[in-house]
Amino acid sequence: MNESTASLRAHGGRIDAAAKLYPAAPQPWVDLSTGINPHPYPVPPVDPVLWHRLPLARDLDRLIESAAARYGRPAGARLLPVPGSEVAIRLLPRFLGAQRVGIVGPTYGSHAAAWQAAGCTVAPLAELPPPATDLDALVVVNPNNPDGSRRTAADLLDRAAAWSAAGRWLIVDEAFADTDPAVSLLTLPALPPRVVVLRSLGKFFGLAGLRLGFVAAGDALTEGFAETLGDWPVSGPACAVGAAALDDTAWIAATRQRLAAERARLDALLAGVGFTVIGGTDLFRLAERPAAGAADLAGHFARRGLLVRGFEGAPHRIRFGLPGNEAAWQRLADACAALDSSPGGT
Amino acid sequence: MNESTASLRAHGGRIDAAAKLYPAAPQPWVDLSTGINPHPYPVPPVDPVLWHRLPLARDLDRLIESAAARYGRPAGARLLPVPGSEVAIRLLPRFLGAQRVGIVGPTYGSHAAAWQAAGCTVAPLAELPPPATDLDALVVVNPNNPDGSRRTAADLLDRAAAWSAAGRWLIVDEAFADTDPAVSLLTLPALPPRVVVLRSLGKFFGLAGLRLGFVAAGDALTEGFAETLGDWPVSGPACAVGAAALDDTAWIAATRQRLAAERARLDALLAGVGFTVIGGTDLFRLAERPAAGAADLAGHFARRGLLVRGFEGAPHRIRFGLPGNEAAWQRLADACAALDSSPGGT
Repeated sequence: MNESTASLRAHGGRIDAAAKLYPAAPQPWVDLSTGINPHPYPVPPVDPVLWHRLPLARDLDRLIESAAARYGRPAGARLLPVPGSEVAIRLLPRFLGAQRVGIVGPTYGSHAAAWQAAGCTVAPLAELPPPATDLDALVVVNPNNPDGSRRTAADLLDRAAAWSAAGRWLIVDEAFADTDPAVSLLTLPALPPRVVVLRSLGKFFGLAGLRLGFVAAGDALTEGFAETLGDWPVSGPACAVGAAALDDTAWIAATRQRLAAERARLDALLAGVGFTVIGGTDLFRLAERPAAGAADLAGHFARRGLLVRGFEGAPHRIRFGLPGNEAAWQRLADACAALDSSPGGT
Repeated sequence: MNESTASLRAHGGRIDAAAKLYPAAPQPWVDLSTGINPHPYPVPPVDPVLWHRLPLARDLDRLIESAAARYGRPAGARLLPVPGSEVAIRLLPRFLGAQRVGIVGPTYGSHAAAWQAAGCTVAPLAELPPPATDLDALVVVNPNNPDGSRRTAADLLDRAAAWSAAGRWLIVDEAFADTDPAVSLLTLPALPPRVVVLRSLGKFFGLAGLRLGFVAAGDALTEGFAETLGDWPVSGPACAVGAAALDDTAWIAATRQRLAAERARLDALLAGVGFTVIGGTDLFRLAERPAAGAADLAGHFARRGLLVRGFEGAPHRIRFGLPGNEAAWQRLADACAALDSSPGGT
């Protein structure tokens, strides 16, 4: 395993690096390495003025109202648009003043990277810790990426109350909550103090290139964030496209059904070639296929032009996103069928 | 002067607030309150995939190459795309570890606001300070906004060398340098240590809604910034639109000529009604018209549907952006002609 294949594991979406590493793979590459909806929200035409003028207060207000309605926030609750939830993940450690953070995982790697970059100590946790620990912040991704494990809002709320009463922060990354809206803390009438919730339009809406997310938290934190990002935290097109997507109840309902059906199709395909699906959401599946056949599963798929997400130290474990069209499904099916004829490492 | 009119002064571009404050003003409002080019770069059609996928390394690389070529950076020099130079202005104080910053001004207000929000002491300076001061960072906007004062690259370079040798930071905001490229420090073979240069595509290119700027600095600082913004610091459309704009040498040359001609037209109009132009760039003019006529100059224009930039404590001083079409020029000319028939404050 060299540095290059490690770079493929670091994040989803490294199609450029994969193409260099596997030049003989069929073109175009099929990217199943992210949990991004392959059927993205159809972006409406962008009014040219939105590229030109600074986003107006009313552009931002409309976006915030659309997000508040979609996420179930009560009137007047703070919701701050951010240029991608990744930026929020990276900035949070610089705002909270926490020194020791626990991260329930394994999970999305940017959380640990951000806290470490800010000079904090990161404790990887397998479970939610009891309130009496020496941690002063806790990160939970809900549903979790990559294993899809879920905590109910009620369960997290209990924890959050005890946790924040002890003066600690709870950060809940709900980037994948759109297919499971019941898990979201944002439907609560009020967030407990010291609770921060992150949302993203990159995954379910398939608008990862737009760079748009939200931070929900108490007033002091959102004001600090707002002060740091300035009066134009997201682009004019992000305001308009984001509001249109969040308002589109019919598209959202149809997309939830479609993703659930395609997730079932993916599960059946994987089960048929000996994978065990150990978790996921309707946007991705985490699956294992121990022992028999290819020892380097991610390499097996990459040589067939399919970029999937592998995991260091777990070569039999793969996260699959949903194929976006029949050609992609067929390539995945062919690669799956070739698994047992492809001995270890080739 | 109430809180609402103060909010009009705080930033350019507050057309929403102006329309509420002056409901009887003619519609649509003409916004001359910013230094944004009213003839923006014509945004090419955006490939839909750029909204959907995460920006690829090659998308970002192409943008950086285009910016490096445009700004005259040598091969291999670091240039970090940021989602608007405003975000860079706001984040810098949290990175540099400086405690006392001098800001040469009066200038763009976000610099002081950002340093104050980070808990630093801000010393307003009328001139570049000598190297022997107790400041540990210095902010210079070049050309300056709102008065257009310029410092040559050679002059700033001399200062920067002494300044950084003493362990201090120099931040040069070149948001308005595109009409005067010779003033830019970015054409130097190498930036001195501890020098940070900011660029923006909002002003000259008229792409304020895109939220795209650049930070040029030494490796340690740009790496810290890059770490904080993550792998997708700007949107996919910003990569493509920004690269196209920066590459378009013909549009840039024609626009420089056009803006210079329109700036001359604005100067003539203002001089004809008793304004003295005291500075500016080809994108905005700072002008004074003491004593006679309207005491509240900004209000005079606002009642006629023209949003201009006023200044607290200097009611006779106005910053004018360029009108974008003949109707806007006519409305400005009419409002100028009415100045002496409009007694103080009405």
